[in-house]
Amino acid sequence: MLIHVVFTPDEAGEAPTGIVIDVIRATSTICQALASGYERVFCTAEVEEARALRGELGAGVLGGERKNVLIPGFDLGNSPREFLEPRGETLVLTTTNGTRAIVAAAAAAEEVLVGSLLNLDAVARAAGELGSDVEVVCAGLQGGFTLDDAYCAGRIAELVGGERTDAAEAAVRLARSFASAVEGLRACGNPLHAGIGDDIAWCARESVLAVVPRLARMDGAAAEIVA
Amino acid sequence: MLIHVVFTPDEAGEAPTGIVIDVIRATSTICQALASGYERVFCTAEVEEARALRGELGAGVLGGERKNVLIPGFDLGNSPREFLEPRGETLVLTTTNGTRAIVAAAAAAEEVLVGSLLNLDAVARAAGELGSDVEVVCAGLQGGFTLDDAYCAGRIAELVGGERTDAAEAAVRLARSFASAVEGLRACGNPLHAGIGDDIAWCARESVLAVVPRLARMDGAAAEIVA
Repeated sequence: MLIHVVFTPDEAGEAPTGIVIDVIRATSTICQALASGYERVFCTAEVEEARALRGELGAGVLGGERKNVLIPGFDLGNSPREFLEPRGETLVLTTTNGTRAIVAAAAAAEEVLVGSLLNLDAVARAAGELGSDVEVVCAGLQGGFTLDDAYCAGRIAELVGGERTDAAEAAVRLARSFASAVEGLRACGNPLHAGIGDDIAWCARESVLAVVPRLARMDGAAAEIVA
Repeated sequence: MLIHVVFTPDEAGEAPTGIVIDVIRATSTICQALASGYERVFCTAEVEEARALRGELGAGVLGGERKNVLIPGFDLGNSPREFLEPRGETLVLTTTNGTRAIVAAAAAAEEVLVGSLLNLDAVARAAGELGSDVEVVCAGLQGGFTLDDAYCAGRIAELVGGERTDAAEAAVRLARSFASAVEGLRACGNPLHAGIGDDIAWCARESVLAVVPRLARMDGAAAEIVA
């Protein structure tokens, strides 16, 4: 069993098991929403796809952001702390990087899991139990490398076990170079993170949720994620 | 001044200064060849381009490899130890990953330098003196991440100075996680490295050459590199 990491979503290959990470904040938010009682999260790449899907469903909560700003007409943003109690059965979520990476991974991997530090142990165990090669896909920022996702990828890669590719070994070594998760996440130079320090501390908590979000199916352009 | 690293050549952006790394072995070989007395190295992406250029020139040494194997009809391979004495003024070189990355970088960066551990201090100093943003481009393996190039990129990024992007910070931390250069290069899982242990030890020697190979011009599809 191989464990691999891709630091940018465009590198994603056709692995049997993919674990998508956008730790600040989309995949942390998906974990929190499903753990809190939402029954499903539809992830879309585009804002208009989210609006259209919400219209078709006739129900559900619209959440997301573009550049960390609430989208006009949406019910909620992309802070995991906005999802501590369900406001409906269905969440339709669209974010700048994370939900796009999930949609892309759905096209490439047989099984797609959603990873974060919140569900660190649970997602690593679930991926290991699948027994196939695992690729951890960092959502990154506008297609580029980010330290927060790479840190989380390294933590997951170490726990999944298996034979590490060069990139997985690099991610594990990178993660070990930080004294704590919050240090690893705060090292990210994304200027948009300056305004969401409380969310970063929230997302740095390790293995506090047992949920393992996974792709159930594609519904048109939307990836349906369930626990 | 920003210092950035791209771990795969497809991520290369339009930086003022690019430093291309294929430490095992193309960029080490280019440094060695120019330090040994070759006046120029033409780098081509394709074998046929190298053969055609050698034909046009009517002189010069044909060097290179595909998958670490000598190319039929070529004079020399891609070991830096084959270039300790010049066999002519001009070397025409084509390799699996490195020369392709140089040709690609030539299209994106204003100044292209060639980096390795052999010229570690010299290339970092030259890039810093240019005073513009620097992007270190890892050639990688078939478009993917490799530990050897990432290690070398981290060593160069640390010496260049400037404000590190997330990827540069990751490369610096990765490089620091190895006790020595030879450990960093040997960590690379490329199976083709099994047969070239002596070259890896050779390429792990730090700052033994003062040469700073740089792109002089494109000659058709070939990048002309001079000291």
